[in-house]
Amino acid sequence: MIALYFDGRELRLAREYQFNRLDDAVVRVVYAGICGTDLEILRGYAGFSGVPGHEFVGVVVEAGDRSLVGRRVVGEINVGCGVCGMCVRGLERHCPNRTVLGIKGRDGAFAEYLSLPSRNLHTVPDNVDDAEAVFTEPLAAAYEILEQVRVDPSWRVAVVGDGRLANLIAQVLSTVVDRLRVFGKHERKVGLLRELDIDAVVEAESRDLYSYDMVVEATGSPTGYARAVELVKPRGIVILKSTVAARHEINMAPLVVNEVTLIGSRCGPFKPALNALSKGLVKVSKLVDAIYGFEEYREAFGKAEEPSTLKVLLKPLNKR
Amino acid sequence: MIALYFDGRELRLAREYQFNRLDDAVVRVVYAGICGTDLEILRGYAGFSGVPGHEFVGVVVEAGDRSLVGRRVVGEINVGCGVCGMCVRGLERHCPNRTVLGIKGRDGAFAEYLSLPSRNLHTVPDNVDDAEAVFTEPLAAAYEILEQVRVDPSWRVAVVGDGRLANLIAQVLSTVVDRLRVFGKHERKVGLLRELDIDAVVEAESRDLYSYDMVVEATGSPTGYARAVELVKPRGIVILKSTVAARHEINMAPLVVNEVTLIGSRCGPFKPALNALSKGLVKVSKLVDAIYGFEEYREAFGKAEEPSTLKVLLKPLNKR
Repeated sequence: MIALYFDGRELRLAREYQFNRLDDAVVRVVYAGICGTDLEILRGYAGFSGVPGHEFVGVVVEAGDRSLVGRRVVGEINVGCGVCGMCVRGLERHCPNRTVLGIKGRDGAFAEYLSLPSRNLHTVPDNVDDAEAVFTEPLAAAYEILEQVRVDPSWRVAVVGDGRLANLIAQVLSTVVDRLRVFGKHERKVGLLRELDIDAVVEAESRDLYSYDMVVEATGSPTGYARAVELVKPRGIVILKSTVAARHEINMAPLVVNEVTLIGSRCGPFKPALNALSKGLVKVSKLVDAIYGFEEYREAFGKAEEPSTLKVLLKPLNKR
Repeated sequence: MIALYFDGRELRLAREYQFNRLDDAVVRVVYAGICGTDLEILRGYAGFSGVPGHEFVGVVVEAGDRSLVGRRVVGEINVGCGVCGMCVRGLERHCPNRTVLGIKGRDGAFAEYLSLPSRNLHTVPDNVDDAEAVFTEPLAAAYEILEQVRVDPSWRVAVVGDGRLANLIAQVLSTVVDRLRVFGKHERKVGLLRELDIDAVVEAESRDLYSYDMVVEATGSPTGYARAVELVKPRGIVILKSTVAARHEINMAPLVVNEVTLIGSRCGPFKPALNALSKGLVKVSKLVDAIYGFEEYREAFGKAEEPSTLKVLLKPLNKR
């Protein structure tokens, strides 16, 4: 099959890649999304080699659960050992022996076919189209915040960042709180948020400083952390969403002095994400900037790296 | 009066220091403790100049609350504006306009006299002696952890560090959990913890890694953070107690991937601290390494800087 293969240094198109089937279900990929983590992986994050890609929508070709065959699905990316303390508590995504689709020990979605356990797959509601469904995984990561923190509707909440994930997070949080403000960087991305009736600005004003009950850092860049810490109230909460590979210099003292709670946040629950797409609570169609075939992968990743880009999708064949 | 004065560069003995009275109560200092934050202040932390020192026990000379005069007291170090949102919620210690004894905008305890509002003072129970009472402020900082986190008695808890604050934190937490382990550095300090029946080790074993529900970082050094993050379970809690002035390089990705909650923690409640000293729940007398007069301040700070030292006390006159 055709796949994009990363050897630890370079990504290339492999036309006769040997399909590496690990589990009962086989999914033919329709679309795969390029995520910030993929860009980090190509810079060496997580020491991954293999087929990257973990955001996808596809059609089930084979599965232990026969009812899934022929269905349109999205899939949870963490595969736990099933027997450790974390797996037993339902926290497969924190299993120390887990593999992660396209991130850790498991080929991912930048290929014609991928395999996952049937239990990881979720069927996509009919009213959610393919290009929307591919946002389920990052949208689930946005919903993870609501799993981790009981967000009070009276809170003032800030999101730092205006990229793909920040946009989804802002939309999810605006279903819970009225007073939400996004601190962005790019006029176009800020404009897209405003079209969604979300208060979005480029510059913080003095009244923004140390005034938010919760701040979500989703810039994907080391500068976001400092901004988040100067927006949050004493005793407030900062959610960290960026897995930035680079170590960066951080002054921890303000966290201690202001008794800030910093919460790392990663993958989340698929059900509320699919529900939100189906009900139109979150709008994603305007976030797709371009769709490329696998053979155009250089252009696709080039586009995804551009600061003004939101989401780039890949598909196995250039012609549908 | 005699005071130790820090001009922003150097600490010196001022024999005729002009007493800077800001509030209704005046306390004659009996003992003042040297804390890690004081050492940081002398390195430039917080940009303070004036009389440092914030751990003290003394006798009230004057006070708006007449019942306090002649009483032995300790004092809360944050003085809020009284009208802002934080003060109204009882969080004076997070008032953005606060002064802090010997740390911010207010002369501290390395002097014959200090002033604080009467409301900041707590009388010391008769069965707590002077050299014990001076530990009330750092012990309150240890109790702050229990204010911030509902610690489950079934948790495995680790403390990273074996210094003055780490020792107090370990004693406080061992009143709540059975499974507590301290990761120290100095044989003598580790030995002191063991004498208190606290499990204390120098080296982490492989079974310690990623296995603690809560880890308290109280080393006062940048290395403690990395150790804490490798001890805590996925979805666990790391409490940060060190206000280290230096910026340090930190890899935030493990926090995100393991969804760790990091909680900054500073000053705490005096009442449980005084109660613990009075009931003997926490033992502090063995933590005092030396007591110096103000005029011996160079020796005192030299001793406090030594890695093997726990607590050094200062007193206004060398002869009692």
